[in-house]
Amino acid sequence: MNNIQRTEAFISAWERCDIDAIIRAVANDIFYHNIPMAPIIGAEALRAFAMPLLTGAEHVEWEMHHIAESNHGAVLTERTDRFRLANGKSVTIRVMGTFEFDGNGKLKQWRDYFDFAEFESQMAS
Amino acid sequence: MNNIQRTEAFISAWERCDIDAIIRAVANDIFYHNIPMAPIIGAEALRAFAMPLLTGAEHVEWEMHHIAESNHGAVLTERTDRFRLANGKSVTIRVMGTFEFDGNGKLKQWRDYFDFAEFESQMAS
Repeated sequence: MNNIQRTEAFISAWERCDIDAIIRAVANDIFYHNIPMAPIIGAEALRAFAMPLLTGAEHVEWEMHHIAESNHGAVLTERTDRFRLANGKSVTIRVMGTFEFDGNGKLKQWRDYFDFAEFESQMAS
Repeated sequence: MNNIQRTEAFISAWERCDIDAIIRAVANDIFYHNIPMAPIIGAEALRAFAMPLLTGAEHVEWEMHHIAESNHGAVLTERTDRFRLANGKSVTIRVMGTFEFDGNGKLKQWRDYFDFAEFESQMAS
């Protein structure tokens, strides 16, 4: 499996709301940074962050517009991430993100760039 | 010149504050979207947007962290864009952007993703 396939499989785990597959795919010391927010460090912190999102979601779809791997193995993505929540709300985030893997193929660095106000206004509405 | 080199040359023109080189590199109908803001459509609208930024800047440096080209020719970048303004202010924006070119090698689509509040708070400070 190459790094683009690893990234696609990781996103697929999010779309299936499969928290165990998400955690299996990451390094224990993963550094996950939603750039406008505080970084999340470590697999257990990622689990604690992801659980309420995934258990509150009826449908998750991260549409991939472009995906590319750099000469250094970093995978860059341009996406539209959609969450339909159990309470009927929908949240749509336009986002780009970088995924970097360690020598064992585990995700060690993940940075997502988006406009925080776009996210927050939908969560509040 | 391939699309990664075109993107690097375009960013280099921004760093030199060379508005003519910027405009030469883009299609007449360029669609330039800073995602949290209204899209800018057309080379002349891009010139009108860029001029005050570049004439007000003492030093422009867009640090490239990662750059990669997709199988479909789109170039994805992860950057830190720094502007030091003539009035002494500095503006630093953490950003990812996608660059797409037409058959003549002109930039036709450019989308930059960043947190608008991060930009706005520095402009205001």
